[in-house]
Amino acid sequence: MAIVCLDLEGVLIPEIWIGLADLTGIDSLRATTRDVPDYDQLMRQRLSILDEHGLGMNDIQRVIADMGPLAGAHEFLMDIRSRHQVVILSDTFYQFARPLMARLDWPTLFCHELEVASDGRIRDFRIRLADHKRKAVAAFRSLNFDTVAAGDSYNDTTMLAEADHGVLYQPPQQVIDDFPEFPVARDYAELREAVETALEGRVAV
Amino acid sequence: MAIVCLDLEGVLIPEIWIGLADLTGIDSLRATTRDVPDYDQLMRQRLSILDEHGLGMNDIQRVIADMGPLAGAHEFLMDIRSRHQVVILSDTFYQFARPLMARLDWPTLFCHELEVASDGRIRDFRIRLADHKRKAVAAFRSLNFDTVAAGDSYNDTTMLAEADHGVLYQPPQQVIDDFPEFPVARDYAELREAVETALEGRVAV
Repeated sequence: MAIVCLDLEGVLIPEIWIGLADLTGIDSLRATTRDVPDYDQLMRQRLSILDEHGLGMNDIQRVIADMGPLAGAHEFLMDIRSRHQVVILSDTFYQFARPLMARLDWPTLFCHELEVASDGRIRDFRIRLADHKRKAVAAFRSLNFDTVAAGDSYNDTTMLAEADHGVLYQPPQQVIDDFPEFPVARDYAELREAVETALEGRVAV
Repeated sequence: MAIVCLDLEGVLIPEIWIGLADLTGIDSLRATTRDVPDYDQLMRQRLSILDEHGLGMNDIQRVIADMGPLAGAHEFLMDIRSRHQVVILSDTFYQFARPLMARLDWPTLFCHELEVASDGRIRDFRIRLADHKRKAVAAFRSLNFDTVAAGDSYNDTTMLAEADHGVLYQPPQQVIDDFPEFPVARDYAELREAVETALEGRVAV
């Protein structure tokens, strides 16, 4: 009995902050932890920028809805969900992900949350739990599930290491070099194959 | 940030063994733990009966598909999934639930598994984890989720007690009498109301 844990941004949907920068034309939203290493400071900067531009939650959800899931993501996900349990583990926020979760037919998502005022202004953010991807995989293992985890970047590697089977999906070359222990899937067909190979003989259909 | 944990049989779908008895006309499939208190013995008896009647997994999945979810279950579930994370916690088996999960748009399900031979004969059953409903709720709480759990019978009460908020859904009077601490929902509108009241101010939309 297996749970497939998938990272969200870069695996099923575009990078949300990059997409917001692209679609709003606000270049300063492109900053990442490479530019501002302190994540809390980066998030406060991002929320200030949205506020300065008068962008409330409704505006942002409309922009995110326009991004859509990545090409092929819906078919890939429905195929996996028809054979295994899937939980998406992401460091985004429920309110941002929501328009895209609707388009992915509401898979289960563990992430974080924004604090939104009644006028739609984003007041703050709440991290549910530090290192929550790894901890969720550990919790599923403690419930006697076989676990496969797939993600694309450094912040997924603790989850990949915790899982019975970790798979890198379209990672940057630097991540491949730093984590040679994980197989690499370059498209959804390869990711499907990696998941099925990992769970061979443990498929609950 | 909340997870709504729902029992499956009696809440979203009919009781599977009763449905199998109804649709196949095999009355001996109606036996429950009231008749055979030892669950392992009961399950072995049920699998023997299926085998004697030559019913393999494909036949059974066809019968279960015909049952369909309970009236209104799909709408209720999609409504809840659009606002909260939902995980279904059940003591059924993945292979039995599968045709109905398809009709419910593949919500995440934690349950148990059957061992099926290549000719479709059900050889055995595997309980993933004893008392797994309660343990799943405890795991979600350890991941900092608020939890609401709803179920209809005695075997749901440890999960209801473990959750931040437990709700009985269409329970027998005896369960209401024995567990007066849990609110009772008599239809999906009341269950929706009970969930939203429990999570008021903690809704992640």
